[in-house]
This record gives sequence, structure tokens and C-alpha cells, in this order.
Amino acid sequence: MFIKDGIEQDKEVIHSFLMIGQSNMAGRGEFSDVPVIRNRLCYMLRMGRWQTMREPVNPDRDIFEIKYHSGTSLAASFANEYAIDRGEAVGLIPCADGGTAINQWMPGKVLFDHAVMMTKLAMRSSKLSGILWHQGESDCKNDELLYSYKEKFKTMVAALRKELGAEDIPIIIGELSENISDDWNVGDRPSKLNKIFHELASEVPFCRVASSEGLNLKADGIHFDAKSAREFGKRYYQEYCELK
Amino acid sequence: MFIKDGIEQDKEVIHSFLMIGQSNMAGRGEFSDVPVIRNRLCYMLRMGRWQTMREPVNPDRDIFEIKYHSGTSLAASFANEYAIDRGEAVGLIPCADGGTAINQWMPGKVLFDHAVMMTKLAMRSSKLSGILWHQGESDCKNDELLYSYKEKFKTMVAALRKELGAEDIPIIIGELSENISDDWNVGDRPSKLNKIFHELASEVPFCRVASSEGLNLKADGIHFDAKSAREFGKRYYQEYCELK
Repeated sequence: MFIKDGIEQDKEVIHSFLMIGQSNMAGRGEFSDVPVIRNRLCYMLRMGRWQTMREPVNPDRDIFEIKYHSGTSLAASFANEYAIDRGEAVGLIPCADGGTAINQWMPGKVLFDHAVMMTKLAMRSSKLSGILWHQGESDCKNDELLYSYKEKFKTMVAALRKELGAEDIPIIIGELSENISDDWNVGDRPSKLNKIFHELASEVPFCRVASSEGLNLKADGIHFDAKSAREFGKRYYQEYCELK
Repeated sequence: MFIKDGIEQDKEVIHSFLMIGQSNMAGRGEFSDVPVIRNRLCYMLRMGRWQTMREPVNPDRDIFEIKYHSGTSLAASFANEYAIDRGEAVGLIPCADGGTAINQWMPGKVLFDHAVMMTKLAMRSSKLSGILWHQGESDCKNDELLYSYKEKFKTMVAALRKELGAEDIPIIIGELSENISDDWNVGDRPSKLNKIFHELASEVPFCRVASSEGLNLKADGIHFDAKSAREFGKRYYQEYCELK
């Protein structure tokens, strides 16, 4: 049984996934670089209701801007892989926001509360099935941010799961690129943060890390290109399958 | 003083407006038919935070679809007029959803709760200044829907104002087009609903109606074209000025 806008429908259950983090979860890939995903089993949340998934899924920025526009996200190919592999409906809850540091995702902050609200609305008509996280570039600016990341992440995930009444909900983290341009002043901190992600995966229940190895960045030196975003989403799905 | 993401900033106050209703509030005008609005005083809510306003403001549908894509909304030119006329910052809270009937906007329904949640988030960093409503085409399908509209609208507005703690917040209603194509099976009910709107404006406090006279529809016979959406937004602003 499927509930949509309060009305019972004879339709499949939507398995929903929360998208949170910064620009590489929101998606900055160029649409023209990859084929459009058209899958009738893939949905996205709009105004609390499910619409057929079309990119950009996560409209955190202007769509038509040349630089840093909302674009192709790893979450779209994650959803497509899920639907193809399982033959089940999947819905994305877009709550990622570009340029945000983990301090902005702590409980009580606008982004955290927004993600909780949207997920709760989505849960009226779907089965919450996982959380997709990609974030950390903004926390590679100095060592202090880097070394306080682990505890902040644990606090955030625990609070999020508690708010959603979903203590055992899987969360998949994606590695940062280790080829971020020097222009972004991150030094070797992305590789250090990737190590922290793997420690988190062993310390936080139901948590896995998707590898960024071999993925390519756009000319801006920080955002995954569209083809790599597609590949990254498949890796997120593979990690998800290790848990569920 | 301006509060953004919990941080006090020495910046102007954003005067925020909630966009609710169906497709002609969401906006279906063609971008290419009108000049882009670029006004540094105009913002839109994204993930609970303010971003510079760029259309489409209200991404309820696919952006790149040929038919019924998210497009130019009257709310964008409303915001632009407000900012130009008053020299003050204005922010839009996009919660409109195409094809929705007033029954779907009643208290407790997903769309109502979504609008309340988003407005409350917006109010952390803005001063709620008004509600923009355009809806009713979906309630012109039969007389029963038409004649129960008035009470439903009153119930919705009273509940919305109460939830937001904003009993005296202005609400501007826009008339339906009286030239909707016969393909939509609305008969002469749009003109009857327009009369009901004017009755509502005299019965509901702080409520005004913007005229649709002379505005043009797209070839689909139901959605205002982009130029008319721009004009309609100016009329909404004129009515707003009668109240504030």
C-alpha cells in the first residue's frame, strides 16, 4: 500500500533517501556531459510530495548560472542504480547546500532542522531507507576544523537518527577528492579527512564510506564532473548493499 | 540587524513573502519571453537559507521539460517591484505546487504543513510580511467544489495565520483568467470564483484581490504567459500597498 498526500493508492512503496552535505552532494556536474536519467521508479521530493525525478534534484543554487549552478548529483545515479537493481521505487529528499561547513549541520541549525522537517514530511508517504552524506571540503581550511570533525559528525548523526526515530538507518559517506586544486587552500587535509571518514565508519553503527578513487574534478578544481558523479552514485549504492 | 543562519549580520532585514497555491503561483511562463530579473535586494529561500533570487523561484516541477515546466512566476516581479519601490530586501518562500486543489491546502495536509514549516524556518532570518495566493483552477471542475471554496479558504487562512503567529499578515489573492480554454472543462466557473474572491476580500481581514483583466494565457489555455506573469506581480504589489 502506498500513501500519497494522505490518500491510499495501490502503488509501490517509495524507499526514501535523505541527501545532506555540501556542493558535491547537491551536485555541480554539467547536464550536457551525461545522458539524462529517466526511470519511472525514481522520484524526488517537491513541496513535501513526490514528483518524477529529473535533474537538478537538489536546487540549492541558480540553475542557469555558468559557474556553480545546481547540476548533476551522485544521488541521481544512486537512485537509478537502486531502482534498476531492486525493481523498487526510490525517492530522494534534497537537503544539501553548497559551501556549508559541518558546524552549519549541527542540531538546531537551520540546515539540520530543514533536513529533519523535510524527511518527516517525506516519511508520511515513504519508507526512510538511508542517508547520503558528502561534505567536508569546507572543513579542510585549517587543522582545527579538521580535528574537531569526527566528534561533530557523531553528534550530528546521533541527533538526526534520534529526531527521525530511525536509530539503525544506514548512512553512506563519500570520500573527498584528493586532487582538489591548490586554489582552495586545503593542503593535504582532504586525504586526512578521508582517513577520519574510515575511522567513523568503524565507530558509527550502520555507516560505510564510498571511495572517490579515480574520480575526476571539473576545471574549478573542487566539484566532481558529471561522469564521475554518476560513477560515485553507483559506489554509494554498492556500499549501501553491504548494509542492506 | 539581520540574522542569517543564526549569526547576526550588519545587513538589511529581509521582508519575506510566502508563495502558495497552484501552477500560476508556482509559475509556468517561458524564461525566454521576458528579461531576466537581477536585483541584489531580491532573495529566495533554499534549504531554509536565503539565496539571491533567480528564476525559477519555485521548482515544483522539472525545469527542462517542454510542457508544464517550472517557469516565470508573478512572485518574481512582485519581489522586484517591492525592492525597487521601497529600497528594501525582499525574500520569497516558494511553496506553491501545480495542479493542486484547495482541499490539498487544508490544515494538516502535506502542502499546508510544508508551507508552515518553511515559513517558520524563513522567519528565523526574516520578517514575514505577506502571503501570495493564486489557486482555484482545480476547483472549477464542478459546482460542488466551487461553492465550498469560500469556507475552505477562510479555514485555511485562519489556520495558517494562527500557526505562524501572524494574525494580521496580509494575503493577496489573484483572480483566475476568465479565458481558460474549454479543454480544461471549467465552464464559466472561473468568473464565478473571481466573484467569490472579491467577497472573501471583504470578509477576511487584510485580504485584497489582484485583477487578471487583460492578462494573456500561453497556448496551453490555462497558464499565464511570462509577460502577463510580470504584469500580474506588479498588480499584486499595488494591492499589497493598499494594506501596508
